Amino acid sequence: MKTANKNQSIIHKSVFMMVLLTLFVNLKVTAQDTKQMVRLAKLTIDSIQLESYKMFLKEEIEASIKLEAGVLTLYATFEKNKPTHLTILEIYADKNAYEKHIQTPHFKKYKIGTNGMVKALELVETVPLIYDMKIK
Amino acid sequence: MKTANKNQSIIHKSVFMMVLLTLFVNLKVTAQDTKQMVRLAKLTIDSIQLESYKMFLKEEIEASIKLEAGVLTLYATFEKNKPTHLTILEIYADKNAYEKHIQTPHFKKYKIGTNGMVKALELVETVPLIYDMKIK
Repeated sequence: MKTANKNQSIIHKSVFMMVLLTLFVNLKVTAQDTKQMVRLAKLTIDSIQLESYKMFLKEEIEASIKLEAGVLTLYATFEKNKPTHLTILEIYADKNAYEKHIQTPHFKKYKIGTNGMVKALELVETVPLIYDMKIK
Repeated sequence: MKTANKNQSIIHKSVFMMVLLTLFVNLKVTAQDTKQMVRLAKLTIDSIQLESYKMFLKEEIEASIKLEAGVLTLYATFEKNKPTHLTILEIYADKNAYEKHIQTPHFKKYKIGTNGMVKALELVETVPLIYDMKIK
């Protein structure tokens, strides 16, 4: 009987620890998720300089994804019916990752290089519905 | 000498096969990529029904990602300053995957369920700058 009680006590403690661990893991995931910075950049490009702009942007995005762990995506896509209009879905691990990003040589090269090409730029801060959504 | 020639011939053939294989793989990747359908859906939701709308959308996206191999992402994000405005980056493997998607029970449930909640819907076909861009 004593052994049975002891075993039951061990089971109770184990269940309690598992519940605590589950809560901790969930809290941690939530805390990490909500630090993300998710933005839509909406740009209009000078039509004459469009191909040149695309080269600058491609180089900048490829370098950012390769060199910066905190840049989670820069998904740039051009409208079929308005080829000079593009939207970039920008996801940064946190605000700090974004601050670092805009100080990199590749970002500065893009920013200075495309200065005369960008006719309009709107930056829209957003909140994603599902933080850990990926692209398959 | 004869053996050396034979070995050289085998090396030449191997290199030729590797070059052919590389070309084939590259062509295949390019062909697959350009079939992708990449769209921005821009929606405005009735503010009174916003939370209900989000539940419908979340359920629909989670089912699509889980059950449909051809739905590569449905990244939905709401504007911080205009919480009733959202953009969904939709990527389908090809046109066929999209056609199948809109016939699924989970899409139909979302479409019928949110019918009175969506105040505006604009579907913008786009061309991505980098087809194989992911979210880390």
